[in-house]
Amino acid sequence: MYMSKIFDEFKEYIEETNNLDHASTLLYWDMETSMPAEGFKGHSDALAYLSTETFKRSTSEKMGDFLEKLSAKEEFDALDSDWQYIVREMKKNYDEDKRIPADFYKEYIVAQNESGVAWQEAKKKNDFSIFAPHLEKMIKMTAQMAEYKKPGMDVYDALLNQYEEGMDSATYDRVFNSLKEGLLPLLNKILAAKPFDDSKFKQKYDISSEKAVEKFLLDYIGFSFDKGCTGETEHPFTLNFNSKDVRVSNHFGEDDAIDPMFSAIHEGGHAIFEQNVAEKLDGTAGGSCEYLGLHESQSRFYENILGRNINFWKPIYSKIQELQPEFKDITLEEFYRYINSVRNSLIRTSADEVTYCLHVIVRYEIEKEIFRNHVPVSELPALWNKKMEEYLHITPPTDSEGILQDMHWSDGSFGYFPTYLLGTIYDGMYIEAIEKDLGSIDKVLEEGRIKDITKWLNEKIHRFGSTRKPGEVIQAVCGREVSAEPILKYFKEKYTQIYNL
Amino acid sequence: MYMSKIFDEFKEYIEETNNLDHASTLLYWDMETSMPAEGFKGHSDALAYLSTETFKRSTSEKMGDFLEKLSAKEEFDALDSDWQYIVREMKKNYDEDKRIPADFYKEYIVAQNESGVAWQEAKKKNDFSIFAPHLEKMIKMTAQMAEYKKPGMDVYDALLNQYEEGMDSATYDRVFNSLKEGLLPLLNKILAAKPFDDSKFKQKYDISSEKAVEKFLLDYIGFSFDKGCTGETEHPFTLNFNSKDVRVSNHFGEDDAIDPMFSAIHEGGHAIFEQNVAEKLDGTAGGSCEYLGLHESQSRFYENILGRNINFWKPIYSKIQELQPEFKDITLEEFYRYINSVRNSLIRTSADEVTYCLHVIVRYEIEKEIFRNHVPVSELPALWNKKMEEYLHITPPTDSEGILQDMHWSDGSFGYFPTYLLGTIYDGMYIEAIEKDLGSIDKVLEEGRIKDITKWLNEKIHRFGSTRKPGEVIQAVCGREVSAEPILKYFKEKYTQIYNL
Repeated sequence: MYMSKIFDEFKEYIEETNNLDHASTLLYWDMETSMPAEGFKGHSDALAYLSTETFKRSTSEKMGDFLEKLSAKEEFDALDSDWQYIVREMKKNYDEDKRIPADFYKEYIVAQNESGVAWQEAKKKNDFSIFAPHLEKMIKMTAQMAEYKKPGMDVYDALLNQYEEGMDSATYDRVFNSLKEGLLPLLNKILAAKPFDDSKFKQKYDISSEKAVEKFLLDYIGFSFDKGCTGETEHPFTLNFNSKDVRVSNHFGEDDAIDPMFSAIHEGGHAIFEQNVAEKLDGTAGGSCEYLGLHESQSRFYENILGRNINFWKPIYSKIQELQPEFKDITLEEFYRYINSVRNSLIRTSADEVTYCLHVIVRYEIEKEIFRNHVPVSELPALWNKKMEEYLHITPPTDSEGILQDMHWSDGSFGYFPTYLLGTIYDGMYIEAIEKDLGSIDKVLEEGRIKDITKWLNEKIHRFGSTRKPGEVIQAVCGREVSAEPILKYFKEKYTQIYNL
Repeated sequence: MYMSKIFDEFKEYIEETNNLDHASTLLYWDMETSMPAEGFKGHSDALAYLSTETFKRSTSEKMGDFLEKLSAKEEFDALDSDWQYIVREMKKNYDEDKRIPADFYKEYIVAQNESGVAWQEAKKKNDFSIFAPHLEKMIKMTAQMAEYKKPGMDVYDALLNQYEEGMDSATYDRVFNSLKEGLLPLLNKILAAKPFDDSKFKQKYDISSEKAVEKFLLDYIGFSFDKGCTGETEHPFTLNFNSKDVRVSNHFGEDDAIDPMFSAIHEGGHAIFEQNVAEKLDGTAGGSCEYLGLHESQSRFYENILGRNINFWKPIYSKIQELQPEFKDITLEEFYRYINSVRNSLIRTSADEVTYCLHVIVRYEIEKEIFRNHVPVSELPALWNKKMEEYLHITPPTDSEGILQDMHWSDGSFGYFPTYLLGTIYDGMYIEAIEKDLGSIDKVLEEGRIKDITKWLNEKIHRFGSTRKPGEVIQAVCGREVSAEPILKYFKEKYTQIYNL
């Protein structure tokens, strides 16, 4: 590959910026997993200083100059396809950022912080009116931000694009509606069936055993401990420095040993993606998957499609019972029924894989009402409750358990929720593609060959990082447009069997 | 306090530099405690970049200008005494650093790295000749460095000063000789006595129990978990960001539950010092104790004077047995004898508190031979073995267990070893001072009031950080010059009783 002087200087400039960003990432990781309470000020001062320096460098005249020069035909044509992607992507982001007036940007950050504080208070006090004016402001400012970034594009489409490039509400409407139509009658049948007795699971679980199980499961599904480690936190997440250092956190408690297992498998799915991005992309704009739907399709594939399949557990359940002896009187069949119990509950984050879809659809439909039909903020709690009643036959007794439950809208993350369900929809499509190449997933799992699936995902999806857009990935992997049919088929077959429908 | 414009700018400049340094500190902590193996390059690139930026700022023209202006009479007189200390200290370090030619500095860093690698190989292969040329170079360059930093001062005194300001070889000679003369006959008597049967301690210990014991002990002696946390590592150490975030690491293994206990108490002693430096000194040159003898006096006071006293354990031994059930058939008396077994062994880091002194004296005397009498490097292994034979009646069968055992000399840390013993000597002096104020230490410990001692140390020593030089601290606390008499008295009384001499 041809390397010009300007390209070398550009690479050096990126590397220096990466070093600052690397340190910021570590500060964030440490704040969430290790930092003592009183260490907060020192860490947040350092984080604020480093992020500001990083932002200055990313939006500097110098950066603009690099991108301008490297985008000129002769220089650009000399780049390989990865670097062409990187330069194009950075130029796009640079231009978008440059269109945001500095004063507006500052005001937005302040509004986000104030809104976050108000949301916490409103949720704690179960008083939507505390949050309402902030929500209204965040809606208005986020729409304005979208207009700066993507002038001329429909605002809600611009927001959807921000989290999953290439997606628009027409596509979401099509797949979400077909999924909803299929799921609602299935859910009604499930809810009419006899619920599973879960009394045997109400035990006190040993936390160091939970940690041993976490390590075992991560290793089993293909997480590399040479390229990653674990930490403890309140809300589990995955974080990556580069493909060589990808970390997952988990939350352990004595009341529940199942949740940390599925958190481990879920975050493990995110982490396996990042650990397997091609090394040559490390430290570049292509080196980490920035498409949330695509990312979520990996975590949810491991968590649900693989992790809630009885065959996943067949080769390892006795090992789990050995590591976590509280399971010794629980049969594999009981365990399997428990991890697939379907309930119409209030809270998205603790929902089963079937009702989870409807929790997301509620949020998506409300976001559309906000940005397309400009429904007043004051009407949103009632709208939320109406949709919950309609789809899940349950009415939140309080707004804290209703519209106030998630933090996403408080910081302006509109258009984010739909990616969670999009991931699940992609998952259905992967099943078909994988079985074409590897044969029955049940059989692969039963034979303890889950790493064959991991290898397949590495090869087909992970190694490209961000350099292939989600639409291209789905087309290449599944050979078709995004469709909810496969996941619907999966749900119907699985739950008809489990609930004897 | 008067604040001039230049002072405000200076403070802001320091704060920015601190933020970079804060991130470097975290990178180091993470490398030693969490980082996955393949994460090394990313972390070390970031660390190299940030440390270089920090160094540039600390030695910049701008910094020189700040220090020059703040040292001018009018500005200086307007500062409070802490800031006078800080400015004076920073000016001294700035001037010292400025006298080192940039080329020499770079060459020294390279030589240190090469020497470290050679030392590791030499130790692994038990071949001193691999290390010899590097050791020779480090001796020469370290002497040159001392001459740049402290022109006109005797080289070895300059090195001693670097680790414990105000100390010189005349003082070390005086106290080490008097200690040696008293210890050698005591050790001979101990070695002639019946050794303790330690077979009951050879067990397999549960590691999560060891961790529970660590947390319990740290809390018991006064380590604050609001201002600190723990990590796991190969070689235990303490690290501080500021007084609000001080971390200790430990090493756990199934073969030994005693070592991690005493590592916890030792590092806890270092950490309690740093957690209790006055908050107003955070982020300044006075905000962390930089005197290694004084620092070691705290860790060793907790570890040995308190932690190896039977009364320390009386109120908590049953709790220890509960947390670590492997101790249930070991009586407190047996435990106490085990943790005070004296043996003439080869390795400093695993030596008991009596022979430890002689291990340090061997190193101190050899350092003097090197820098005063210019003994050739080739003669050092034999000199080492001769002194080990003379003081400890044991001859290292290999150089790996002899002169090659410690890494300190490989990176030019000459003058460092004596501070370990100096800390112990200070400890003897503290006993007298504490008993004058709080009464019998045995009684305070037996009544579970160890935190009274911690509070006393906070008040008398910790809160000053570096703003009081070791000589001033000892004078203020003990009201006398440094002397080995008190620690010798302690050793004689304690071991005469334990070994029925």
